[in-house]
Amino acid sequence: MRPLTDVRRLFVAAVLATSPAVATVAPLVAQAAARSPAAAAPAVDRRQLLDYMERIRDENDLPGLSVAVAVDGEIVFSDGVGVAELDNRTPATGRTVHNVGSVSKVLSVVGLMQLVEQGKVDLDATIQTYLPYYPEKRWPITIREILTHTSGTRHYREGEFGEYGLLRFRHFESFEEATKIWRDDPLLFEPGTRWFYSSHAMNLMQGIVEAASGMGFEDYLRTYVFEPAGMMATQFDVPSRVVHNRGHGYERDRRGAFVNADPEDPSYKYAGGGILSSAEDLVRFALAIDDGTLLGPGTVAEMRRPQIDRSVPEYVPGGEPRPLGHEQAIVWWIRTDQAGRRYPSHTGTVKGTRSFIGDWVDQGVVVALQANALPFDSARCGEAIAQMFLPPPERAGR
Amino acid sequence: MRPLTDVRRLFVAAVLATSPAVATVAPLVAQAAARSPAAAAPAVDRRQLLDYMERIRDENDLPGLSVAVAVDGEIVFSDGVGVAELDNRTPATGRTVHNVGSVSKVLSVVGLMQLVEQGKVDLDATIQTYLPYYPEKRWPITIREILTHTSGTRHYREGEFGEYGLLRFRHFESFEEATKIWRDDPLLFEPGTRWFYSSHAMNLMQGIVEAASGMGFEDYLRTYVFEPAGMMATQFDVPSRVVHNRGHGYERDRRGAFVNADPEDPSYKYAGGGILSSAEDLVRFALAIDDGTLLGPGTVAEMRRPQIDRSVPEYVPGGEPRPLGHEQAIVWWIRTDQAGRRYPSHTGTVKGTRSFIGDWVDQGVVVALQANALPFDSARCGEAIAQMFLPPPERAGR
Amino acid sequence: MRPLTDVRRLFVAAVLATSPAVATVAPLVAQAAARSPAAAAPAVDRRQLLDYMERIRDENDLPGLSVAVAVDGEIVFSDGVGVAELDNRTPATGRTVHNVGSVSKVLSVVGLMQLVEQGKVDLDATIQTYLPYYPEKRWPITIREILTHTSGTRHYREGEFGEYGLLRFRHFESFEEATKIWRDDPLLFEPGTRWFYSSHAMNLMQGIVEAASGMGFEDYLRTYVFEPAGMMATQFDVPSRVVHNRGHGYERDRRGAFVNADPEDPSYKYAGGGILSSAEDLVRFALAIDDGTLLGPGTVAEMRRPQIDRSVPEYVPGGEPRPLGHEQAIVWWIRTDQAGRRYPSHTGTVKGTRSFIGDWVDQGVVVALQANALPFDSARCGEAIAQMFLPPPERAGR
Amino acid sequence: MRPLTDVRRLFVAAVLATSPAVATVAPLVAQAAARSPAAAAPAVDRRQLLDYMERIRDENDLPGLSVAVAVDGEIVFSDGVGVAELDNRTPATGRTVHNVGSVSKVLSVVGLMQLVEQGKVDLDATIQTYLPYYPEKRWPITIREILTHTSGTRHYREGEFGEYGLLRFRHFESFEEATKIWRDDPLLFEPGTRWFYSSHAMNLMQGIVEAASGMGFEDYLRTYVFEPAGMMATQFDVPSRVVHNRGHGYERDRRGAFVNADPEDPSYKYAGGGILSSAEDLVRFALAIDDGTLLGPGTVAEMRRPQIDRSVPEYVPGGEPRPLGHEQAIVWWIRTDQAGRRYPSHTGTVKGTRSFIGDWVDQGVVVALQANALPFDSARCGEAIAQMFLPPPERAGR
Repeated sequence: MRPLTDVRRLFVAAVLATSPAVATVAPLVAQAAARSPAAAAPAVDRRQLLDYMERIRDENDLPGLSVAVAVDGEIVFSDGVGVAELDNRTPATGRTVHNVGSVSKVLSVVGLMQLVEQGKVDLDATIQTYLPYYPEKRWPITIREILTHTSGTRHYREGEFGEYGLLRFRHFESFEEATKIWRDDPLLFEPGTRWFYSSHAMNLMQGIVEAASGMGFEDYLRTYVFEPAGMMATQFDVPSRVVHNRGHGYERDRRGAFVNADPEDPSYKYAGGGILSSAEDLVRFALAIDDGTLLGPGTVAEMRRPQIDRSVPEYVPGGEPRPLGHEQAIVWWIRTDQAGRRYPSHTGTVKGTRSFIGDWVDQGVVVALQANALPFDSARCGEAIAQMFLPPPERAGR
Repeated sequence: MRPLTDVRRLFVAAVLATSPAVATVAPLVAQAAARSPAAAAPAVDRRQLLDYMERIRDENDLPGLSVAVAVDGEIVFSDGVGVAELDNRTPATGRTVHNVGSVSKVLSVVGLMQLVEQGKVDLDATIQTYLPYYPEKRWPITIREILTHTSGTRHYREGEFGEYGLLRFRHFESFEEATKIWRDDPLLFEPGTRWFYSSHAMNLMQGIVEAASGMGFEDYLRTYVFEPAGMMATQFDVPSRVVHNRGHGYERDRRGAFVNADPEDPSYKYAGGGILSSAEDLVRFALAIDDGTLLGPGTVAEMRRPQIDRSVPEYVPGGEPRPLGHEQAIVWWIRTDQAGRRYPSHTGTVKGTRSFIGDWVDQGVVVALQANALPFDSARCGEAIAQMFLPPPERAGR
Repeated sequence: MRPLTDVRRLFVAAVLATSPAVATVAPLVAQAAARSPAAAAPAVDRRQLLDYMERIRDENDLPGLSVAVAVDGEIVFSDGVGVAELDNRTPATGRTVHNVGSVSKVLSVVGLMQLVEQGKVDLDATIQTYLPYYPEKRWPITIREILTHTSGTRHYREGEFGEYGLLRFRHFESFEEATKIWRDDPLLFEPGTRWFYSSHAMNLMQGIVEAASGMGFEDYLRTYVFEPAGMMATQFDVPSRVVHNRGHGYERDRRGAFVNADPEDPSYKYAGGGILSSAEDLVRFALAIDDGTLLGPGTVAEMRRPQIDRSVPEYVPGGEPRPLGHEQAIVWWIRTDQAGRRYPSHTGTVKGTRSFIGDWVDQGVVVALQANALPFDSARCGEAIAQMFLPPPERAGR
Repeated sequence: MRPLTDVRRLFVAAVLATSPAVATVAPLVAQAAARSPAAAAPAVDRRQLLDYMERIRDENDLPGLSVAVAVDGEIVFSDGVGVAELDNRTPATGRTVHNVGSVSKVLSVVGLMQLVEQGKVDLDATIQTYLPYYPEKRWPITIREILTHTSGTRHYREGEFGEYGLLRFRHFESFEEATKIWRDDPLLFEPGTRWFYSSHAMNLMQGIVEAASGMGFEDYLRTYVFEPAGMMATQFDVPSRVVHNRGHGYERDRRGAFVNADPEDPSYKYAGGGILSSAEDLVRFALAIDDGTLLGPGTVAEMRRPQIDRSVPEYVPGGEPRPLGHEQAIVWWIRTDQAGRRYPSHTGTVKGTRSFIGDWVDQGVVVALQANALPFDSARCGEAIAQMFLPPPERAGR
């Protein structure tokens, strides 16, 4: 039997510590918990973070805000302020479940990179290698270009969901069927020459993973990403499902009062914006990348490596190209915080929610959060929270 | 990664110390925590598992679900969600008692293997060595064949319990009497040449243990298995008994509403499907094998050793033989989880309940669970829960 | 009905005022009561009855006892001591639900007497008038003879349920099918000449009501008896059903320890011993007869009128006839209490439970109770409880 | 209206006296109780009704059930069992808000009858008098025919909501626009000659009220019906709105597990199936008709008067006409309960919920309820609950 790492031992102690059932009905177990050393520290700092979250809620007029933080491989904070949904005023927690929008992209790409690791997907092969139904364009497109927003594929656009946008409510049983909405449209530019954010392109991850693995996309991610990472609340956003702890996102009417965000069946975009998760599960996801549960170190390094030459500008529809504001890795964005620390991250926006995941890999700090109204600068807020846990930057480095 | 300063570590502990959200949504937890001296460590992971159990309950529409988990020889989780029975809505816990169905087989075989260890039973002797009343068949049958589903004995079949199935209600005082239902039927194939799941064959463990030990089967198991392992809630499913913490299993009527599962007196099948236990006791059982309480290491190794050559196919009534989907040890099934880890396990289904035990021996993780409605993939659920406690698989193994 | 004195009304209010059992099983209700300005009356008398129930439980070694009492048309007591069932120690209350055994007969006959009132059943017609499949016997049998235990029909007997009594578990979809067990047996005596308790005969009420009403028996009773009387927990004892608040009956093993009573599907005897009800619902049933909800006054009078001449003796199998110990009305027994008050009543015994209903019509007191073990003289206990609520007998009358 | 007996008044007070839900969440009701002199009476009957609601929940496998009851103009019960919605397991109460489906029709018609009372609408005018855009048909149609299901207008039909039924999600700002779905279809029969349930026809109430009042339909109902009646939780089911205490309706998948009912924007059918309300508000609605708050007595009498000659049969598509099973008043159905009492009522079914309102006008009892899964016979359940509060029927009436 392999010895337990310290992390696992701590986990076990934590589980034991506040178990009412065990305490009430299984005293022997409770006594074991009593031997655990970690218990007496003051709660003052936790309250500081909760106060900051309340401030953020006030500043942004958010119904609720959920935050989870890990330090050195352990979840040290998971909680919420305000409400997960307004109809019944269910409190927000770190386990509140929302569609994480484009944060789905980084969950999906880890599944895809496992297949790269196994040799089942080649980042530099063309998209038709895996999706023969994808039409030939003026230029070939590689998987790497798709995963770095340099494929020239257009993003969502007004009107593409038909009269009154009703196609947004359609449930697609087949991903291939869903691509018909946009796949015949011409490229915006020659692949590799520009950067342009395209969720349509990213959604192709579903087709690629299904073709390379022979499994349904959700079944694949559940088996090889969500469960190994302990993301037990994470699943696809299928509107018919009952989802324990599900929250709700909001928009504002003209007066600023909250109204329900427009519903939508994200079956056409699971990979790019259709996965339900919690702040806590998003932190677990980052930890499972960092500790090697999900990918080998070489694959992780490639995934996090900036892929685009600094000379490649951002494409601006109807305007002049402009310099790109972040470093673009495989799906992940490498942001730089106020203190100059670079960290892989992603944000997401869908159905009135706004999410963020940031992994300060070198410092061992992960922050994930979800808010349920817009506008909200989730990355700005996530960086601020991370400062509370990050060691001070080294002066010399500035 | 830079090590955390002590100050930061204290901060982290402080963050963990008190969670207002817990007070709001799980007051019992908060109260119990307040009484427990060691109570300040995070309840996060325990809540995560309870949330996952609620998710499983929603997805499968289960009245209740009970789960127990051990890590490194200690029970670290034992709890339930929903109800153990619907008439009085008794809450499900990790100590809820159900008939564990075919999980009884692995409890029984440990008793039998003790007798093997003592030289009182020879796995390669014929069945008539211990049960002289057992009729001679076209081919001889060994105990090992019986314990590996290769004896050619048939399984339960429609109609064998007489008009209206009323024989299911008969209480057999003598096991030998119960075997008359099926023991004269011809073998399905030459022993050793095929695999075919047969509870009738496995039920013979009762007769073998009684003959070899000179004790009644329940008396033997209670004395040498249940009590040494601390399985204080485990006993035979004798319908007349009052059983503390007993739950109830359910079927569904045409509309989907729960109805009581058909009652049955399992006196004809104690060894194969007639033992009452709890998730917590099932975990204790696995721990008592792992730590040598019940069997010596050589015997355990033999019990868990795959016994069937890969060339032996599964017998399919009226169809072509097909490859066997698991490795067959002595009674135990060796399953392989998503990450490629092999582990001994068994599932059980009886009277509207569905159970699972899995022992990740090399990683020191045991999971047991019980649900009280069907259909429910208890092994799939048990593996998912195990992922939460298992260390990440070694990359080389992938 | 005699009006209550003011003193007795105060007593009733006092009994209601504080219920410790309520505190245990419905704390919110008890707290609300505590805030009520009228809650301050002494609880001594209520506690006296609960103490007496505890004494009865001790004397008879009962798991639990449920009692309900009405005075002048109002339920003034409904509570239990001990447990409704032993597995999970669910507390007994006045709303605990058990099969009331032969008390089912008085519930059933009220449905039948409604059809008599409407001219759809003639008490003096022969049984074949309604059940053409019933075989002709040596003498004709009238409905009235069936309803007064003077038809000469035999009672249940050892062995009639086949090998191991397994037929007791059979679910009969058709009542006619169930009568095949006994209907061809010869009469014990010429109808009208003897009294002999026969549940088989009484079970014929199901067939008669179904034939005369054109409705299924349970549907009829639910529509015209249970719901109009507010007996919302009362229903047929169909083993597959989930039944809210269901208790359990017990027998004793050789040492005197409780074991579960043998299960049974009462589908062959709903009218005579197959209805689930609570002490509280039984009291409501009596009140709904007394206030005219269920039957007109003439029909009630006929139902409660002793029907057998004092010269008709009780038939004793293999012995000499002996004088009958009670007055026999239509199904109801007219008992005489210690003070010489006559009152209609019935007891029931089935599956380890023992029930009683007594209606002191002239004094406006109804008592119903259920215990869940045997032996237990439920009528003796019911009379004793009634004494607590009855006005003193008038001296002149003694 | 028959005066209540003292016993019934005491019962009513008793039910109010110890209601924790009312005390906690509806202080105005609790204050009414505090003024009631009889508050010491037993809480027995409240528990009995909650038990019955649990029984109904078990029998029909409902997530939740909400019930409110008024006796003699006062709400005496308002509570729920189970959950209003499954994601966050919000408890069901009497104030849970669901779309009440076709119960919306009786709310709407009271608004329309106010305009009749004011001479602004003539029941015997043609539909084009108020809706000039309504096409001329082979025969003229009167408002009265529309309100009695005798206009020959078709009901909803499969396929009318376009590909994948996506038109169900469209939000219609104008009612006239919504009628284009069906208004050009031919009549099924000559108006007045047959009865055929048509929600499309009933939905025209919105257009009529808007034309005759010059107000938007919701604004009109809110001003002249909901607020005067104290129905403070009642409003239109506009999907974008945040709705305090909103529950959720469910369907079942193949295994019997609950899934979310299909969403729908009821903007095309507010009058016939698009109003959100609670059991408590529905009771208030009936009380406000009974006490003259909403309509004068003559108008109420006309609204509740059976409007169709007994000779008018029900139209059966593709079959022979058959006798109508109820009396048809203006929108309201006059049902007859088991005891022969006639009462105005309506049921509703929409998006996985099932509602009922019944007003036993002569006896002063109102019952309203909502369940959140199908199938469920809400009228049968409502009648059973009413029996608990109704005085016994007069014998002469039987």
